[in-house]
Amino acid sequence: MEIIKPRTLSGFMELLPEKQLKFDKMVEILRRTYASYGFAPLDTPVIEDAQILLAKGGGETEKQIYRFTKGDSDLALRFDLTVPLAKYVALHYNELAFPFRRFQISKVYRGERAQRGRFREFYQADIDIIGDGKLDILNEAEIPAIIYKVFRGFGLSRFQIRVNNRKILNGFYAMLGLSGQSGDIMRTVDKLDKIGADKVKAILVEDIGLTEAQADEILKFIAIRGTNAQVLAALEGYTGREELFDQGLAELKAVTANLAAFGVPEGNFAVDLTIARGLDYYTGTVYETNLLDHPEIGSVCSGGRYDNLAGYYIEKQLPGVGISIGLTRLFYVLDEQGLLNPELPGAPADALVLPMTADPAPAIALAEQLRAGGIRVQLYCEQKKFKQKMAYADKLGVPFAVLLGEDEIAEGKCSVKNMKSGAQEKLTPAEAAAAIRKAVQEAENCAVILEK
Amino acid sequence: MEIIKPRTLSGFMELLPEKQLKFDKMVEILRRTYASYGFAPLDTPVIEDAQILLAKGGGETEKQIYRFTKGDSDLALRFDLTVPLAKYVALHYNELAFPFRRFQISKVYRGERAQRGRFREFYQADIDIIGDGKLDILNEAEIPAIIYKVFRGFGLSRFQIRVNNRKILNGFYAMLGLSGQSGDIMRTVDKLDKIGADKVKAILVEDIGLTEAQADEILKFIAIRGTNAQVLAALEGYTGREELFDQGLAELKAVTANLAAFGVPEGNFAVDLTIARGLDYYTGTVYETNLLDHPEIGSVCSGGRYDNLAGYYIEKQLPGVGISIGLTRLFYVLDEQGLLNPELPGAPADALVLPMTADPAPAIALAEQLRAGGIRVQLYCEQKKFKQKMAYADKLGVPFAVLLGEDEIAEGKCSVKNMKSGAQEKLTPAEAAAAIRKAVQEAENCAVILEK
Repeated sequence: MEIIKPRTLSGFMELLPEKQLKFDKMVEILRRTYASYGFAPLDTPVIEDAQILLAKGGGETEKQIYRFTKGDSDLALRFDLTVPLAKYVALHYNELAFPFRRFQISKVYRGERAQRGRFREFYQADIDIIGDGKLDILNEAEIPAIIYKVFRGFGLSRFQIRVNNRKILNGFYAMLGLSGQSGDIMRTVDKLDKIGADKVKAILVEDIGLTEAQADEILKFIAIRGTNAQVLAALEGYTGREELFDQGLAELKAVTANLAAFGVPEGNFAVDLTIARGLDYYTGTVYETNLLDHPEIGSVCSGGRYDNLAGYYIEKQLPGVGISIGLTRLFYVLDEQGLLNPELPGAPADALVLPMTADPAPAIALAEQLRAGGIRVQLYCEQKKFKQKMAYADKLGVPFAVLLGEDEIAEGKCSVKNMKSGAQEKLTPAEAAAAIRKAVQEAENCAVILEK
Repeated sequence: MEIIKPRTLSGFMELLPEKQLKFDKMVEILRRTYASYGFAPLDTPVIEDAQILLAKGGGETEKQIYRFTKGDSDLALRFDLTVPLAKYVALHYNELAFPFRRFQISKVYRGERAQRGRFREFYQADIDIIGDGKLDILNEAEIPAIIYKVFRGFGLSRFQIRVNNRKILNGFYAMLGLSGQSGDIMRTVDKLDKIGADKVKAILVEDIGLTEAQADEILKFIAIRGTNAQVLAALEGYTGREELFDQGLAELKAVTANLAAFGVPEGNFAVDLTIARGLDYYTGTVYETNLLDHPEIGSVCSGGRYDNLAGYYIEKQLPGVGISIGLTRLFYVLDEQGLLNPELPGAPADALVLPMTADPAPAIALAEQLRAGGIRVQLYCEQKKFKQKMAYADKLGVPFAVLLGEDEIAEGKCSVKNMKSGAQEKLTPAEAAAAIRKAVQEAENCAVILEK
């Protein structure tokens, strides 16, 4: 037979079992956390009608999309989870209860230029709350609580949720008579972290055509720093001049007012006037999230409030608020930087049962008893020498090997070997299941992400 | 804005939240059961190099596949999970421990003619055990235990795992001097349930060219019925004439020998000589699974032993055994026939917290307390009249509404309303969480599939 060299396409993540188990653990934490806030799971097709997916059209999206025909159909793979959500909500408008809260953790596709750490197939983990006509600001206030729970769930405490409101920015630019340039200004200010204040000013003046005074006003504004209370107090000084600004400030205060009730510590939350989010899409609160010890990773969870989710598909005003975590990239970077906790279980089984007798029946029954005790058990089925069996247990990385020979069978026990310490003891099946379960649960409860 | 009518492509399942929760419950049961037997999760890309995916080439596959180019790349969407597994095992051969056990529950794509109950995007839930050079028969014996646990996990008891061995069939046809026609014969015999014995005989004689005597021998053979012990005893009468047959019988006996140790009741298992599985791929044990009260659904879990998983990609003999559940189709049929249990929770939250005061802080804090108590809680954030709030709770289908007004706050309690019975009582947050958790767990433990 002619051999075709196997390969996985570049830009597509394919993990070995140990890594996959850790990835799946992150997905599980996301699912559990999102579900605990009453979000319904959603699973839309990977393939959609290209006309529908590209209703908004234009720009980078069109170039990156995987689009093809099958028969007469013009098809495309989803490039995010928001457009399919818009389609879903418009299509099922009459069947859904609004506010409609959904989470979706699914793969999306972008045929970008292949590049280290960039993926063409990657998971997004999104939540959105969609209102029918109106959506209370309290929904925007709840989002930081969910972000907080997710990253605490990953085992982190050193992260910061940075929040701003687009109405404050747009209102402020209106005060300066710069409403027409607000998009350009925001995109420039967004680069502050990367290029510094001097270069931002240069672009504002030279490229966008602001006066020196206007540019200085903007830099002074976005330089407002301090505790949340201090920043909000400084913003009070700008009120009474522009309605949009005042509205934005009222919303920002509403978002920060109940942090304590939501259980979000001040230290994990910051009002940050430099956050704008490049997309025109957002109209109110915007969110970014940074790992304090790893600013180089950039925002690991972003989103915001928008006013018109599905205008391309339905004549209804459907405002919403949502966030997205680029899970594949996050996992890749964490792994590359050695931040995945090696203590987290990476073996496909908690115990490997090794039959030491000709008749496998007692070992089979033991494995079933251990499974009934709540642990993951692989029965070793091959006829090999003891040394080879133990080498397999080692390569698999199972924390426990459970040996069952004539002696153990006669005593109604099994020999449980801790593969790490080498310690071995004879236990009844019930004792063995309890001991292994305890050790595994301790390991399962450890942080996914290491905080050094 | 011009409106584009939203639609989901035909042949693509997209569920409303209530159904999605039930679907996800089945996925969770599959994941948990597969993991409990030491299978590692795997998540391969949806898109693969078309040359690699179609290494085997030919036939229906090539016609049905979604194949397209992007830049210079000839790409295709996976049409099953076995070919990607073969690629994965060949690619990562040196990094994997053999036997390699993996499960994958993922979507696959087949551009079939659209037809009621046929899907172009559907989930397969597969397990496979891959050996390096050899794989002990005990692995084949373990498979029925896993199938049994999965369907018991779904809440069923009236199902039957039907098992045969291709070596018995091939050996038997060799005895009749019909080795050359064995493929045609098996494909014909496979239709026995659908077309009956007379038509099978007619095809064997008229189309395949067997003598009347040969056809009668075959019909007599596949008519062997009875308990597992009776069928095995009848097969003993054919031994000593053909080595392949004897080997197959020895394997079949090994597969049935340890059923009790594996915890599989006789009533859920049957040696069935009519099972052949059409694919040439299988070489030993073959499996099908039927719901006894719904034979019309056909096999809901099938698979078998094969000798050469990855011969297209690597010069290694990699035998394996695996099964596959076509989950999307199974779910569709169960739903259509009304077999999904309506008692299974279908709401995205266990409780809806309704703030009854102007300040939302107490309700926010209550919702967080309830979540910490292990239940899924949606905080109702909108400013609406009480009647509208309750109408929303009804439409959402939440089992409990939790009301928090001035009176409750003063007492340190909340009012928990059972939405089904209408009963309402004042409880502390801890009592409320415990009461709701208890009710929800009872509902969660009910069977996914109804057995009437």
